[in-house]
Amino acid sequence: MRESLLYGAAYYDEYMPCNRIQTDMQLMKEAGINVIRIAESTWATEEPQEGVFDFSHVRRALEAARDAGISVIVGTPTYAIPPWLAAKHPEVLAITEHGPGKYGRRQNMDITSPAYRFYAERIIRRLMECVQEYPNVIGVQLDNETKHYNTAGPNVHRQFVWHLRERFGTVEAMNEAFGFNYWSNRVDCWENVPDPTGTINGSFAGAFEIFRRGLVDEFLAWQSEIVREYLREDQFITHNFDYEWRNFSFGIQPDVNHKSAARAITLAGCDIYHPTQDRLTGKEIAFGGDVCRSLKQDNYLVLETQAQGHVNWTPYDGQLRLQAFSHVASGALGVMYWHWHSIHNAVETYWKGILSHDLLPNAAYREVCTIGRDFKRLGPQLAGLKKENRVAILTSNEALDGLRLFPLPGGKVGYNDIVRWLYDALYDLNVECDILFPEDGERFAGYAMLVVPALYSAPDSLLDSLNEYVRNGGQLLATFKTGFADETMTVGAQAQPRRMTACFGMTYDQFTEPREVYLEDDFGHLEEGERQVKLWMEFLRPDTAEVLARYRHPAWGKYAAVTANRYGKGKAVYIGCQTSPAYLKRLLERQLKEAGLWTETQEAPAVTIRSGVNRQGRRLHFYLNYSGDEKRTAYLHGNGTELLSGRSVCRGEKLALEPWGVGIYAEDA
Amino acid sequence: MRESLLYGAAYYDEYMPCNRIQTDMQLMKEAGINVIRIAESTWATEEPQEGVFDFSHVRRALEAARDAGISVIVGTPTYAIPPWLAAKHPEVLAITEHGPGKYGRRQNMDITSPAYRFYAERIIRRLMECVQEYPNVIGVQLDNETKHYNTAGPNVHRQFVWHLRERFGTVEAMNEAFGFNYWSNRVDCWENVPDPTGTINGSFAGAFEIFRRGLVDEFLAWQSEIVREYLREDQFITHNFDYEWRNFSFGIQPDVNHKSAARAITLAGCDIYHPTQDRLTGKEIAFGGDVCRSLKQDNYLVLETQAQGHVNWTPYDGQLRLQAFSHVASGALGVMYWHWHSIHNAVETYWKGILSHDLLPNAAYREVCTIGRDFKRLGPQLAGLKKENRVAILTSNEALDGLRLFPLPGGKVGYNDIVRWLYDALYDLNVECDILFPEDGERFAGYAMLVVPALYSAPDSLLDSLNEYVRNGGQLLATFKTGFADETMTVGAQAQPRRMTACFGMTYDQFTEPREVYLEDDFGHLEEGERQVKLWMEFLRPDTAEVLARYRHPAWGKYAAVTANRYGKGKAVYIGCQTSPAYLKRLLERQLKEAGLWTETQEAPAVTIRSGVNRQGRRLHFYLNYSGDEKRTAYLHGNGTELLSGRSVCRGEKLALEPWGVGIYAEDA
Amino acid sequence: MRESLLYGAAYYDEYMPCNRIQTDMQLMKEAGINVIRIAESTWATEEPQEGVFDFSHVRRALEAARDAGISVIVGTPTYAIPPWLAAKHPEVLAITEHGPGKYGRRQNMDITSPAYRFYAERIIRRLMECVQEYPNVIGVQLDNETKHYNTAGPNVHRQFVWHLRERFGTVEAMNEAFGFNYWSNRVDCWENVPDPTGTINGSFAGAFEIFRRGLVDEFLAWQSEIVREYLREDQFITHNFDYEWRNFSFGIQPDVNHKSAARAITLAGCDIYHPTQDRLTGKEIAFGGDVCRSLKQDNYLVLETQAQGHVNWTPYDGQLRLQAFSHVASGALGVMYWHWHSIHNAVETYWKGILSHDLLPNAAYREVCTIGRDFKRLGPQLAGLKKENRVAILTSNEALDGLRLFPLPGGKVGYNDIVRWLYDALYDLNVECDILFPEDGERFAGYAMLVVPALYSAPDSLLDSLNEYVRNGGQLLATFKTGFADETMTVGAQAQPRRMTACFGMTYDQFTEPREVYLEDDFGHLEEGERQVKLWMEFLRPDTAEVLARYRHPAWGKYAAVTANRYGKGKAVYIGCQTSPAYLKRLLERQLKEAGLWTETQEAPAVTIRSGVNRQGRRLHFYLNYSGDEKRTAYLHGNGTELLSGRSVCRGEKLALEPWGVGIYAEDA
Repeated sequence: MRESLLYGAAYYDEYMPCNRIQTDMQLMKEAGINVIRIAESTWATEEPQEGVFDFSHVRRALEAARDAGISVIVGTPTYAIPPWLAAKHPEVLAITEHGPGKYGRRQNMDITSPAYRFYAERIIRRLMECVQEYPNVIGVQLDNETKHYNTAGPNVHRQFVWHLRERFGTVEAMNEAFGFNYWSNRVDCWENVPDPTGTINGSFAGAFEIFRRGLVDEFLAWQSEIVREYLREDQFITHNFDYEWRNFSFGIQPDVNHKSAARAITLAGCDIYHPTQDRLTGKEIAFGGDVCRSLKQDNYLVLETQAQGHVNWTPYDGQLRLQAFSHVASGALGVMYWHWHSIHNAVETYWKGILSHDLLPNAAYREVCTIGRDFKRLGPQLAGLKKENRVAILTSNEALDGLRLFPLPGGKVGYNDIVRWLYDALYDLNVECDILFPEDGERFAGYAMLVVPALYSAPDSLLDSLNEYVRNGGQLLATFKTGFADETMTVGAQAQPRRMTACFGMTYDQFTEPREVYLEDDFGHLEEGERQVKLWMEFLRPDTAEVLARYRHPAWGKYAAVTANRYGKGKAVYIGCQTSPAYLKRLLERQLKEAGLWTETQEAPAVTIRSGVNRQGRRLHFYLNYSGDEKRTAYLHGNGTELLSGRSVCRGEKLALEPWGVGIYAEDA
Repeated sequence: MRESLLYGAAYYDEYMPCNRIQTDMQLMKEAGINVIRIAESTWATEEPQEGVFDFSHVRRALEAARDAGISVIVGTPTYAIPPWLAAKHPEVLAITEHGPGKYGRRQNMDITSPAYRFYAERIIRRLMECVQEYPNVIGVQLDNETKHYNTAGPNVHRQFVWHLRERFGTVEAMNEAFGFNYWSNRVDCWENVPDPTGTINGSFAGAFEIFRRGLVDEFLAWQSEIVREYLREDQFITHNFDYEWRNFSFGIQPDVNHKSAARAITLAGCDIYHPTQDRLTGKEIAFGGDVCRSLKQDNYLVLETQAQGHVNWTPYDGQLRLQAFSHVASGALGVMYWHWHSIHNAVETYWKGILSHDLLPNAAYREVCTIGRDFKRLGPQLAGLKKENRVAILTSNEALDGLRLFPLPGGKVGYNDIVRWLYDALYDLNVECDILFPEDGERFAGYAMLVVPALYSAPDSLLDSLNEYVRNGGQLLATFKTGFADETMTVGAQAQPRRMTACFGMTYDQFTEPREVYLEDDFGHLEEGERQVKLWMEFLRPDTAEVLARYRHPAWGKYAAVTANRYGKGKAVYIGCQTSPAYLKRLLERQLKEAGLWTETQEAPAVTIRSGVNRQGRRLHFYLNYSGDEKRTAYLHGNGTELLSGRSVCRGEKLALEPWGVGIYAEDA
Repeated sequence: MRESLLYGAAYYDEYMPCNRIQTDMQLMKEAGINVIRIAESTWATEEPQEGVFDFSHVRRALEAARDAGISVIVGTPTYAIPPWLAAKHPEVLAITEHGPGKYGRRQNMDITSPAYRFYAERIIRRLMECVQEYPNVIGVQLDNETKHYNTAGPNVHRQFVWHLRERFGTVEAMNEAFGFNYWSNRVDCWENVPDPTGTINGSFAGAFEIFRRGLVDEFLAWQSEIVREYLREDQFITHNFDYEWRNFSFGIQPDVNHKSAARAITLAGCDIYHPTQDRLTGKEIAFGGDVCRSLKQDNYLVLETQAQGHVNWTPYDGQLRLQAFSHVASGALGVMYWHWHSIHNAVETYWKGILSHDLLPNAAYREVCTIGRDFKRLGPQLAGLKKENRVAILTSNEALDGLRLFPLPGGKVGYNDIVRWLYDALYDLNVECDILFPEDGERFAGYAMLVVPALYSAPDSLLDSLNEYVRNGGQLLATFKTGFADETMTVGAQAQPRRMTACFGMTYDQFTEPREVYLEDDFGHLEEGERQVKLWMEFLRPDTAEVLARYRHPAWGKYAAVTANRYGKGKAVYIGCQTSPAYLKRLLERQLKEAGLWTETQEAPAVTIRSGVNRQGRRLHFYLNYSGDEKRTAYLHGNGTELLSGRSVCRGEKLALEPWGVGIYAEDA
């Protein structure tokens, strides 16, 4: 385990308009940059012609970095294929539901194509042979942001049918599971299974999504096995996982099962991009970090994040610094920018790196220098921060599929919106979370509160784990749609919420879109607007449950909106509709208090606070001012030291954080 | 003719997650349901493999229904093909302007494909053989919501060219008719007639639409002939016609000529879906019913309507009941829900039936029970209601094509918007209408007022029929665009309105989009906003006509907007622009009064009133409260009895209708 | 050179629903129409079958016109191919990025297809043979609105690769120039150059645009050479150039290099369409005219403009007249309407000509008569007006490509929006402009002020010409993005603005999207709203430059927004952001004053004033009232005569222009 923090940037000698690697290394060294990420996506320079290899850019970067005392993470270049490969083997381009692909962009290939795999393996092996002699290579990144790229050609279809055979055994079983009698979709033999890209059957479509996410697991495992042959013991294997993309990293990745895909790596990595300027909140940094940390329940690397980034992300003074320490506060072992220099051509010309196009030191570089200095100085105290979270959010790719295939009314609110509605409310209350996945059933018991957003599609076993969690004393807070369908997207023919009516102590069989519907309850005093039901409403009919809120509406007033039920030793809260964030926070406050999770930190969230325990066993608290105003607050934790300034601090002491400022408090041992 | 009302639901034993047909029949029987609709769209269960037939679901449903005393309408299953058919004969999937189709959804086939016809005929015959022994089969439904599905492949193109040869005789005649000299589109021989899906010539495109609607007529006639071989005298042949779809049934169906297609059937049928909750107005129920009743000038079946339906249609208490009696008030012989149970898979999972997914009696079922009871009790008095309408609206598929191919500015207001602008205003005034079609010229004389929305494309003969109608004393009320083009979408090179300048006593040669233009007239006192011209304005120059309204505008003030002309014994009113509904109602009031069609019923439309004469010759009046408030009104008709309560009622008596309530008054004989 | 003005319309005997050419010629003659434009787009009537020629419509029009004393411009019919050609040679239809084309619309062919060229040449030659005997043919129009129609099939790709070979010599040079190392796009041999329609590399995509615009140059030159063989000395060759189309003529044409394409012709021509009614401003007439006049630095023809045009263009009384004289005021030699009669079929049915569909004299025709009369009377004084503009705007297709390929944030503001933002502000100040193109470097010195909108992509030589222009005393006013990338869309790796930091006396390396950012300066007193930065903001850091405006914003206040720098004998102003039109006008006023270009005409722009020198050497001033109100102003020029009324006028005299009125003042010699 490295002793200090990694701080770095992606570096592309290949893209430079002139040879200036010595200048760059010098600038990096001065800035405190101690790692670069190279080679990813540069296949065409490494193998400019089929079978002709040229690793001069790679070697040059490795050697210049070595001489400057800079570590290197080497990426396999496989996510961008060279023109000669597409020209010789057009079949490597993925056929998607929109037809055959064209050469041009990256991530356009069929990752199952044998031709692609043949050439990919060869370039990976050659690259590994080249880099294995360099001691400053600390790890390898497999591919980049791998996904299935919607591959759906005839060969993929054939693999999918085999997958179905293995899953279901007989066509009859599949017909039953998918409800294929509907609209004459019943299949008579495996040969006649239709192309799923035309289907109107969400169960079938969902199965295809599961299958395609499996392709990513298999692909990364395949690369991992190849790469492993060349690595020293001290070198890690990582991957750059990315998140649902809404022009920034928004939620869990729809096309990859991060949890299972991460089996191929030894150190989790991700990229996190986020709005900035007045829209910088730290939420994406926290969410992306919490997910990545949860993949292997360990520290992780931020392999890419923005320096200047998009035109509307140009950072204010102090923001790069605030962002860097926020990553560390989530447990990041290192922060790397994408990328060192702004590119002078092509589609990412305006996705600016640390240096602008003129390649001169600039405002961003100057702020990087201050961060580099502090990372170097404080790294040993900050690296390897451990979390002790009492709350977890259960996320699920299959539930996400469910709300994609059976969208909520209006089509604008998807699964990740619901995840973030809950996550963001907790973040606003300074409640830190771990992220759980459907395979984490045995870990539920470790948390005092489990938050379950719209678990649309779930196997019986997962619902049973939730029941058991509550029975054993857990506090469960689940939303509308939870348990609605099984793992084949088949809606339960039993009372809803499926298998959980006893746990929640209520049922429902109708729902509608709210129009001018408001919540009525006995807690929280909110304005009318904040009480409005935003989207979806289930008509809850309590049995043993207590009603926390009802609907106010001429026709629907007889139904409950939010219920809480004592079940075994625990409590199960069900939210039957999407409320305003303000309302949700009131409800969370009520339940956090009940679960004994409410402290001063939640009470006065003038600033964002993130905490953990460092390798020396000291409790650290990051006070983050995500605003353009100076913020005053009291120091809420045990006596200790503010690390950046070295000043000691006493519990209760008043402190001020400058705009976009940060304080790092280490409690005395 | 059946003595009582039919009340029922579509029933799919095939889609049930478990065998519960006895439970379902028992529940239906208790609810007063006396008919189910089966088999439609279940080809793959009836013929799970090519040539292997299995009618066990069909027989089971027929027998369970028979044992419960429930009648059955059997649908041919041909509108959803099995996977094996698409796999073996990919050519059965329609090629449309967007390219070849994919298997998956229903209604994806080329209805002219011989392979499709071969297998379709076989399954129809086998099904008919199976069901003909069951006495409780009261009728057969051909296919379902048949359309041409935009079929436009090379084989269809060849048929289309033959159609053109028959229509025009020579390419020269076609070139003239279509104005093919424009942009070098002139054709030299039939072989070189281009694919119409790329055309910029609206005449050619319109001819293709006419041809493709003809395919539907032919297809239904073909099925009808097959089915007829198997039927008893007392069994009817019906079809489920649907309407222009805007997430509910909005206007006349663009892709089918309902009037000509209905020649294939013996009893008209349709589906009607509509907004509900606070948006329930009864207008779609009335419009769809009026169209369907007009197809064979007889009573009809509502083969499908919503029980719970879409998420935003979940009905308020009382609404299902109000809807059911509204259908009857339009002359429906029966009301059937789509569908009995909510489906647990695929694209219509959220199109809920009477039962929710949990298959338990629920709010919807309980209201169905009350309707079933009243239908049973009052059926003999309500079934077979006859209408005696004095007003008719002339609709035309070709006019609809015209406004699709030559859209009004903005592209948002189509033909059906204009139809509904007029229809809805009449509905608001409690003026009931019949619907007429271009082939109904000889029936015009039967009406005191004829309303003609935007008859863009019309043969000379139809315009001449309108002239004659007025000459003989009719009151004609036509809107902008009427008569503009002939039946080939060729704009007249004579003065506009083509062939009707004498009838309307005015002409025009310019038009524009209104911007801040208002109507000025001597009748009706409306606010500024209600006087604004909404869309389109023709610059009418009266000759013999009286000006009912002018435009108020610095440049266009010299032109008339609405004119009225005495012509022969009748009156022809022309509306040169789209006005607000309020303005239109003032104008209609003026003209209805002139035509002697204005009564107390029009005067105070606090409630919707629909009337007719029952089989016993008694005059029935349905008082329908389409609102969430109690409505008070006077009883406006002859002394009689309120049928639901059995209370007698006197003309002028005050009565109150509960929210979404209904009263049915039978005048004393 | 013709002595008087041409006034006319496109005439299509081919499209007439009946033979009425004598009537039409009589109506034209009475209206003062002295020229018609024929034959363009009528290939299928001229060659109804392959190899069968029929010029009867052409001859009939030529002879009827001759007999009526009307001149004729003959168009080659090649931009609309007949069905037989597409049927026999489907390969003539252009394959675009959306796949193969369909027959139907015009301008659907691959203009490089040998089959198309073969048949096109034959019909051109036959048509020329036919028309060469007619003395009333005054010129020929090549094709119509020629563009490359996005042709991108395999054959075009092969030509493109040859073009790249010629441009770059080696793949290595191309790889460097395009930055093809990025994302593995590096190419190993010419055979493997990928299809540019899939590319993510803007340099490559931009090169394809340059190549395709070259196809248009070549095509018109090819037609010109053929046509030239048949022409008399006094006959001109023209082409109907059109502009960026936003449902009207908005800006410079993205798909054609007007300047280089115009080498094929002897007299520039264009079509200009514009909003009308209350939205008529004269800006499109002025802009389109200024561009067209600049192509050959000579007078030009308006070959098409609207009579009635679109539904929302129906002109108010006086507008046709105002438009006609505005064209003349820009230097037009003639004004021709598209088209004489409204067409009764197909896609342009609602693009109405002078006559409406009823073919009777109407409001438009009556106004045409007054214009014809005045053109005839005043033509010798108005034809051939020369401009003496002191201001020019530099436009560039490559810069336009740049902002298409690298769009400004939001994607709504393109290059032409910036051009028009500047042009329209100058127009509002009555500052007339010439238009310059990148090849016009040697002409810069002729102007006192040079305005340069967003010159995103420019070769070094062009930037050097601008530097030299300023050094020698010119006033340069350039906007954001100027000089950002070189001619291959590669962003400069030097300080920005590339090669011009000395000239502008400032640099910048960051930029962002403005949110609530306002300009602060010492000149002009404008409301808050008018000072808001609209789009894009560069963070200018002045070196020798004076700051004319700064940004007001908590984070960006340290940066300049507008700078002015003395450089050599001249002045270079740089605008780093898009401002409101009002703000821009204040800035222009400041700079025009500094350049000595501010006169009374700019001071009081109650009316639009356009000036020039006629063939008799007299200075003419057109006073144009682009409003629906009477406008009062003073006469600001030398004593003279108002030509329409014949009244003499003295400098300073008060005059009133009626709504949409026009006055033409000729200064005494």
